[in-house]
Amino acid sequence: MGDHDAAPGPAANGNGGSGRSGRRPGQSGTRAAILDAARIRFAEVGFDKASIRSIAGQAGVDPALVHHYFGTKQQLLTAALDLPLDPAMIRDRIAAAPAEQLGVTIVRTVLGIWDSPVGVHAVATLRSILGGGNDPALARAFLLEVVLRDVRERADNPPGTGVPRVLLAASQMIGLLIARKVVCVEPLASMTPDELAVVVGPTIQRYLTGDLELPPAAG
Amino acid sequence: MGDHDAAPGPAANGNGGSGRSGRRPGQSGTRAAILDAARIRFAEVGFDKASIRSIAGQAGVDPALVHHYFGTKQQLLTAALDLPLDPAMIRDRIAAAPAEQLGVTIVRTVLGIWDSPVGVHAVATLRSILGGGNDPALARAFLLEVVLRDVRERADNPPGTGVPRVLLAASQMIGLLIARKVVCVEPLASMTPDELAVVVGPTIQRYLTGDLELPPAAG
Repeated sequence: MGDHDAAPGPAANGNGGSGRSGRRPGQSGTRAAILDAARIRFAEVGFDKASIRSIAGQAGVDPALVHHYFGTKQQLLTAALDLPLDPAMIRDRIAAAPAEQLGVTIVRTVLGIWDSPVGVHAVATLRSILGGGNDPALARAFLLEVVLRDVRERADNPPGTGVPRVLLAASQMIGLLIARKVVCVEPLASMTPDELAVVVGPTIQRYLTGDLELPPAAG
Repeated sequence: MGDHDAAPGPAANGNGGSGRSGRRPGQSGTRAAILDAARIRFAEVGFDKASIRSIAGQAGVDPALVHHYFGTKQQLLTAALDLPLDPAMIRDRIAAAPAEQLGVTIVRTVLGIWDSPVGVHAVATLRSILGGGNDPALARAFLLEVVLRDVRERADNPPGTGVPRVLLAASQMIGLLIARKVVCVEPLASMTPDELAVVVGPTIQRYLTGDLELPPAAG
């Protein structure tokens, strides 16, 4: 099994990739094997503990090949989730916001992206995660370790509260995205990102920087 | 088709029903036809405009039979969504809360129910709605017209803001339920309803009774 990829040609290649170079026989099979291995390792041991080396081992390839195809571990996770979106786009816009503007910036940025053409794909991924088609552990790692890593670190005050703060904010954002894009309820579906930022921004701001009674961190 | 129900016996009957009386031939077929008709009418014209008479007409039965099998229109909607849960349970607990306790009461009550045995079924329904298996219009009607009708009326200040207020609150609650029950992220998944009520209650309270900048109601 897995050796139908000897013939060159327009194989299923996932995300863009290096289309210009002549495709080596077996490349799409190798990429797919690495992605499968990454999904398994991320789900089994979590994003932090899954090393590129262990993923390469599981896929039966050299670790250098993983870096060659996918770049960093964060980029590999993004590829494993099959998102067409560069999470750095979100991260950079949020990172530029002053602390007291975090809430409105996050609402405006996230809703803006979901309203854009890539948002269609994001909705499909969300449906898939909710329907059990994508591993929730991957989605969690993607949120905490890629998209919201910087926010989590900024919000970690007092220490240990960063994760619950960010997850509370994510719970509100995901509920809002479902209301707008999955269930499509009015008036939420047609309010602009700016209008919703005014209303929902303070919720996110309080979760991230407010004085919350959170249980002691589990570790 | 639909006439396999002449034989009496343990037919699929959905929600409990009048199990003790001898089942008439055709009862389960009639129930199913009424539920189908209700789903169609609710989706086509909305909960408010779908009359029991029009649903009965669509199902080809007498309106009295709809009342006999399902009770009120709200109860018919609950049955159409195939929920084992009596929404009056939620409504009554929330109705008893003073205005300034609405937020914490809603969080505590809703999370408590989702943590209970019926919560398993609620999670399945949520997954189905999100996966497109249940009509989102039914879910919206169920939320606005059954579960949250009283809250919507209490929160309608200034007039016209009741619907967006309640939907914002619902967006937070649904996101929280997904975090706890679908994606199962820690620490949110294992925080108690009381712990989360302290943290998330103020969000719900602000959405329902706070001074929000909402766009003018569409009507």
